[in-house]
Amino acid sequence: MVVNCNRIFKKKLREIKKSLKRCAPCPQLDIIYIKKNTASEIYIAKKTKVAQELGIKINTHTFKRNINPDNIIATCNSLNQDPNCTGYFIQLPIREEFHKAKVLDRISAIKDVDGLSSENLGKSIKGDPLAIRPATVEAVIAVLRNLKIQSKSKKVTIINDSNLIGKPLAGYLLSRGATITICNEFTKDLKAHTKHADIVVTAVGKAGLIRADMISNNSVIIDVGITKVKGKITGDVDTKSVAKKAKAVTPVPNGIGPLTVICLFENLLKLRKLQQNNLK
Amino acid sequence: MVVNCNRIFKKKLREIKKSLKRCAPCPQLDIIYIKKNTASEIYIAKKTKVAQELGIKINTHTFKRNINPDNIIATCNSLNQDPNCTGYFIQLPIREEFHKAKVLDRISAIKDVDGLSSENLGKSIKGDPLAIRPATVEAVIAVLRNLKIQSKSKKVTIINDSNLIGKPLAGYLLSRGATITICNEFTKDLKAHTKHADIVVTAVGKAGLIRADMISNNSVIIDVGITKVKGKITGDVDTKSVAKKAKAVTPVPNGIGPLTVICLFENLLKLRKLQQNNLK
Repeated sequence: MVVNCNRIFKKKLREIKKSLKRCAPCPQLDIIYIKKNTASEIYIAKKTKVAQELGIKINTHTFKRNINPDNIIATCNSLNQDPNCTGYFIQLPIREEFHKAKVLDRISAIKDVDGLSSENLGKSIKGDPLAIRPATVEAVIAVLRNLKIQSKSKKVTIINDSNLIGKPLAGYLLSRGATITICNEFTKDLKAHTKHADIVVTAVGKAGLIRADMISNNSVIIDVGITKVKGKITGDVDTKSVAKKAKAVTPVPNGIGPLTVICLFENLLKLRKLQQNNLK
Repeated sequence: MVVNCNRIFKKKLREIKKSLKRCAPCPQLDIIYIKKNTASEIYIAKKTKVAQELGIKINTHTFKRNINPDNIIATCNSLNQDPNCTGYFIQLPIREEFHKAKVLDRISAIKDVDGLSSENLGKSIKGDPLAIRPATVEAVIAVLRNLKIQSKSKKVTIINDSNLIGKPLAGYLLSRGATITICNEFTKDLKAHTKHADIVVTAVGKAGLIRADMISNNSVIIDVGITKVKGKITGDVDTKSVAKKAKAVTPVPNGIGPLTVICLFENLLKLRKLQQNNLK
């Protein structure tokens, strides 16, 4: 079965619109964008489009490619103080230089809408209910919830060991009793780790990585990969063959991607609530 | 082969003594202890004994069993400001009430000698070289280094999903290219996850959990478990049978336990250096 992520997207859109009616003033999302490539700009455009549909104001702070990390840190400090900014994120990927300058850790936890700081990663890993998890992780969780999957005792294989996906997702699922395997580019026999898994989450960007012979019957396959093959957007999973064998597989396009965008705005509302509770 | 952890311990002891000669004033370790049980007191006594051997001053702040979390938070605030305190930790385990009050997050990252705060956990998980990792995790790393084990492409199974051991250890090994499986009490078929692993780290507290039939030839088995059977301290591993099959196995007692104590003081020296670099 191919999961209808569009239905989950629309449900979330309705819920957020409903919450926004009770939420004055309307939250504001800021984006720090250091010029990178067309892909990054497409992602920002997608977020902006959903924001417009929701009536949420977006400010994009665009910097030239060779900007000094100090300027980005100054912008973080300013946004941390700005009462109009509910939350902000730095559009990834960024140059290694910015990581060395620990720019992501300058984002105040209370405005860290994509859970990029060490503090939020630590809280995510601890399973803290107040943690802001990266929107992609929330999108995966949304699919599992929609399918009514209980994580306890499940064997989950995550093919991604990044701070943005693999690690915080593992932390969340561990706190719910799953057994987790995290694979990466150095994993020797990937099939050995996917073949017996109840759930496989893949976020590599390699078309055809996961085929029907690599998974077990009744497994749930979540495709977070995104790449272009002959000009066509595709995920990591051979969806056609996998859909016949697996209990459920998410499609690409129209799968985790749009859900990630909507989950970013859910995080923004969560931040607003945390900020209001802090003021009380 | 049974790993001679005593030799690693003595080597580290010599190195710390050497570093301390160049380190004035001598670092000071503070311990916050909320009365619990004999086991906790034995752990504190062991740390105090090694501190005496190193000439490091220890202050133990002991609180009665039913102390209010606010008092512990006040002590954290005071130690965060105290220029004489190089680092401190709260002796675990603590009551759920303290976790709810997020007491561990009150420990300033620059004094968090056992890596207990969310910020340090996040940094550990990110593989940040400035992260302070829990001393137990450092002890496991010390054994792997001593055996000259490269983590890249290795299959590692960790039987412990806690914030103090399993999660930060997984983060460290992932950042070095290992493929990681984390098991817990809800894992259904433990043997399926240990049988093909290159490295197994177990920290459960269940005697005889890991037997020779559960591991592969030439694997490395690190026993972090500790429990009492008929008054005798024992680990999770059936060391006698496992030692014949595995490439290496750490013993209990005289294994990871004493190494954890010495690694705590290594962390204290690391904090001192971080503090001095911050002042520059």
